[in-house]
Amino acid sequence: MNELELIKRLTASLPVNAAVVTGAGDDCAVLDLGVPGRWVLFKTDAVVEGVHFTREAAPGQIGHKALARCLSDFAAMAGQPTAAVVTLGLPEPFDAEFLSALYAGMNGLATRYQVAIVGGETTANPERLFVSLAMLGTVEQAKCVRRTGAKPGDAVFVTGRLGGSLAGRHLEFEPRLVEADWLVEHVAVHAMIDLSDGLASDLRHLMEQAQVGAELRTASIPISPDAKRQARQEASGKTPLLAALTDGEDFELLFTVAAKEAVPLLDGWKRRFPDLPLTCIGRITAEPGLRLRDKDGLRPLTEHGYIHFT
Amino acid sequence: MNELELIKRLTASLPVNAAVVTGAGDDCAVLDLGVPGRWVLFKTDAVVEGVHFTREAAPGQIGHKALARCLSDFAAMAGQPTAAVVTLGLPEPFDAEFLSALYAGMNGLATRYQVAIVGGETTANPERLFVSLAMLGTVEQAKCVRRTGAKPGDAVFVTGRLGGSLAGRHLEFEPRLVEADWLVEHVAVHAMIDLSDGLASDLRHLMEQAQVGAELRTASIPISPDAKRQARQEASGKTPLLAALTDGEDFELLFTVAAKEAVPLLDGWKRRFPDLPLTCIGRITAEPGLRLRDKDGLRPLTEHGYIHFT
Repeated sequence: MNELELIKRLTASLPVNAAVVTGAGDDCAVLDLGVPGRWVLFKTDAVVEGVHFTREAAPGQIGHKALARCLSDFAAMAGQPTAAVVTLGLPEPFDAEFLSALYAGMNGLATRYQVAIVGGETTANPERLFVSLAMLGTVEQAKCVRRTGAKPGDAVFVTGRLGGSLAGRHLEFEPRLVEADWLVEHVAVHAMIDLSDGLASDLRHLMEQAQVGAELRTASIPISPDAKRQARQEASGKTPLLAALTDGEDFELLFTVAAKEAVPLLDGWKRRFPDLPLTCIGRITAEPGLRLRDKDGLRPLTEHGYIHFT
Repeated sequence: MNELELIKRLTASLPVNAAVVTGAGDDCAVLDLGVPGRWVLFKTDAVVEGVHFTREAAPGQIGHKALARCLSDFAAMAGQPTAAVVTLGLPEPFDAEFLSALYAGMNGLATRYQVAIVGGETTANPERLFVSLAMLGTVEQAKCVRRTGAKPGDAVFVTGRLGGSLAGRHLEFEPRLVEADWLVEHVAVHAMIDLSDGLASDLRHLMEQAQVGAELRTASIPISPDAKRQARQEASGKTPLLAALTDGEDFELLFTVAAKEAVPLLDGWKRRFPDLPLTCIGRITAEPGLRLRDKDGLRPLTEHGYIHFT
């Protein structure tokens, strides 16, 4: 049993109670605490030095990223964040200026989205900085989007441009809260997830939850300038397309809507968000598996993101 | 500026919003999310290997302690916990059996108090195990007890017996949720806190919040058998009294009620909780400062827990 399998087994047997609408396994947990017409969303996430950022990252970026990751999960459910608590594991020696700058980065983003930081815990973690953040908020019950609702025939959309996030975007990305809010006001979103593990992996989450497959048009996948630059410099060892499919930490929205909604959605989006691309990259299929379509036909994409050229 | 002062400064300037009833600085944050008659409580806490437990601790005890610390904070506000999320920072090499046992300890306690575990995050923290937990729940608005309400003349009470927790109790303690619930049903609790830093420190939190002082009767302070044993073995270098005043991690309840409620409270408590001592250890004073009264008179207790013998 590998780590992922164990975590899956452990989370499958967690205690639940009557308040739980959706437990572990979606972008946020969904709880019914008795708020009229609304559910409460609950999420935790962490960034660790040497894993999610390096010593070279500016402290304000670390604070920004720690909070933005949780906000991105709220966006993926069309939720409104309310409050966060922060646990800091601080290495020795303690650096006051660094910590102030970290909080400044976090507070700036929190203020922009009206999120209150309502407490936290500070402890030692001698070898490396560890920032764990938990967030709660609410969502209108009728507008809560989960990972489960993809239907065969749905159009698959993604915001932004993908791949190469490690060049810097992973420390500075803007969570798509405004966009998600607009989406659920204007279209029936069937399923949504934020891109943290990479397009291919995160699309598989939507596929597994709904027991469906998907077919992507390679020519339509929006590739970031960073992914193209890294490919030219051979820094990543990946083609731009493979980077867009498998690089993590894009923190864009991936979602599906009924095919007939695709064109009006694109029209409305362009008027509302002229600077952020929204791209239809393919469709959900009844047939399981993830396939890529290009001028030479259909090719399956393996679980680990490698493209089988047949 | 030391670490404590910086944290104080940082938490004083955190972003807030209209949902915040009480932000950082109490046992839990208190939020108004629109649940009729109730507030939402929100808390995070962490336990770290080498700081809050050693390699020798059983994994089930670590899981128990991580959850119990948050539950103890809910007890301190007379709150009802609903759900928790868990962030695990896992050292290398990964040990499946250890992790399963950790979850078993956590799940057992969660089940006993009907707390759902609704998700989490797993990341690497190569050198040591890091367990960060966040919890949300609710409290009847009229029964929420904060740290702020101590009044001169109040009787000061503590549950259990104090000191020497490191001998093992810190890994196995039972959070006082049932007791706190009973207390707010039967008496007007003015202020309450759970004992995590030690009686003298935590009482000072209540004093500072209400701008009052306190006088404790040394002969009344309930001292744990562990604290006495450690003093006999000279393991701690503290007298049993000093251990009861300054050892951390007792996770008992410290609270104040009007003096006239003291006797009926003690009577009712003995009938309901015959096996758990409840002790009146002194009183709140208008005069600031913390003083100890024994047969030789009154002595001030310094900020760091040392007793001035004048």
